[in-house]
Amino acid sequence: MIIIKLGGSVISDKNTAYSFNQEVVEAIAEEVAQFYPEESFILVHGGGSFGHPNAREYKIREGLVGDVKRKRIGFSKTHQAMLKLNDLIIEVFLEKGLPAYSVSSSSIFMIEKGDIVYGELEILRKLLEKGFIPVLFGDTAIALDKGIDILSGDQIVSYLAKMLKPSKVIFLMNVDGIYDKNPKEKGARLIKELDTEEIRHLLESSDSAGIDVTGGIGNKLRKALEIAHHSDVYFINGKVKGNITRVLRGENPGTAIKRW
Amino acid sequence: MIIIKLGGSVISDKNTAYSFNQEVVEAIAEEVAQFYPEESFILVHGGGSFGHPNAREYKIREGLVGDVKRKRIGFSKTHQAMLKLNDLIIEVFLEKGLPAYSVSSSSIFMIEKGDIVYGELEILRKLLEKGFIPVLFGDTAIALDKGIDILSGDQIVSYLAKMLKPSKVIFLMNVDGIYDKNPKEKGARLIKELDTEEIRHLLESSDSAGIDVTGGIGNKLRKALEIAHHSDVYFINGKVKGNITRVLRGENPGTAIKRW
Repeated sequence: MIIIKLGGSVISDKNTAYSFNQEVVEAIAEEVAQFYPEESFILVHGGGSFGHPNAREYKIREGLVGDVKRKRIGFSKTHQAMLKLNDLIIEVFLEKGLPAYSVSSSSIFMIEKGDIVYGELEILRKLLEKGFIPVLFGDTAIALDKGIDILSGDQIVSYLAKMLKPSKVIFLMNVDGIYDKNPKEKGARLIKELDTEEIRHLLESSDSAGIDVTGGIGNKLRKALEIAHHSDVYFINGKVKGNITRVLRGENPGTAIKRW
Repeated sequence: MIIIKLGGSVISDKNTAYSFNQEVVEAIAEEVAQFYPEESFILVHGGGSFGHPNAREYKIREGLVGDVKRKRIGFSKTHQAMLKLNDLIIEVFLEKGLPAYSVSSSSIFMIEKGDIVYGELEILRKLLEKGFIPVLFGDTAIALDKGIDILSGDQIVSYLAKMLKPSKVIFLMNVDGIYDKNPKEKGARLIKELDTEEIRHLLESSDSAGIDVTGGIGNKLRKALEIAHHSDVYFINGKVKGNITRVLRGENPGTAIKRW
């Protein structure tokens, strides 16, 4: 079983509200279609320009504090926005003949201090068994500490990997993988392979070889470290056709972290 | 806590595909708004002209047999159609300032022989505790016997009532309640009260006083019999303004089945 994370910046343009990269998602679906049903898949997607503007506007990450009436409304609106993005993705996969099936993350996960502490996976397992491709997404979630919070797609991937032990976890990004410094900077070099010792070193060192370990990449590497207990992890460019196929054939078109 | 079932024929016109009775749902939301947050609510809605055409086209009730590829696609399409109806309802409630929150029935329930055999209610309980109004819906569902099946809104109501023991369960219909024969027939008389003995008698007698006990009303009465273990049950006209208010004030504008 393979878990593919569709990064928000791959499927959506974060600078344009409610934008959807239809052609990119179609290309992804076409590659998945070459391997399904011999291989089974779970997809998890990020919020892109559907989830984030709502989550920010209503300050969902603050929890159920302040104007709680407005917070509750915003919590629901954010979820509905995510369902709309999810619907667009499901539709593309169905068009390509793939039985993608929407599972509402907030209906099955609860979190505490930003981590999933409770997950209902029985139905997910049954969906896989019956030949479906479950599609989950970064979402609002009930939080045991703050009342409400945001659950990221990356956290879902990490939890599912721990529980379901896929052979590969593939993160689709809008860059070619993990770089030794911000890929927009001159001279940034793609790191082809990382072992867990190197990741630990990167995360612990203060200069971190130029990687911003407090940002999204740091979080991704922390999750990758957990996932690499059980699964090979790949960070690849989701906008480059053929990349998913390469990974599924055993090649490495981006950054690979082999399981321990 | 009150459970309200919004019948598919109340919120949608079953003869027109994807029709939504916006004004009826607005009126329902306005009545609920008079009692929230002092009273807490769970809403469950039917499929109307969103769910049923898809479920029929793909023969979901047959299970995962025959052309299973097409069945899986249809299973997902039916769920997505239900999410669209659910989104319209959520939007109306949010507009009225009510924190309705969508819970995907197929993400938390599994069924066998048409009955729910597995339900994940922890998140539902937390949503109630945090002041939300969870909104569930009749949906496709994983079935332990047939692989896939349809889970009706009425079954969800019955299961939730058993587990959560609401004070009242209100079924909104497009007629005034339960009649002694088909309400379209001449001389049909509204039954104001039914006790459980009378329901049992109706369901067991072959003529059933004109009620079609094999159809939807028979199923509703069977569910009502179970629910009346714990909760008062009302069948009322959901298109008549003020009816929900009347029930919540202790009156009976339709058919009442008092708890045992």
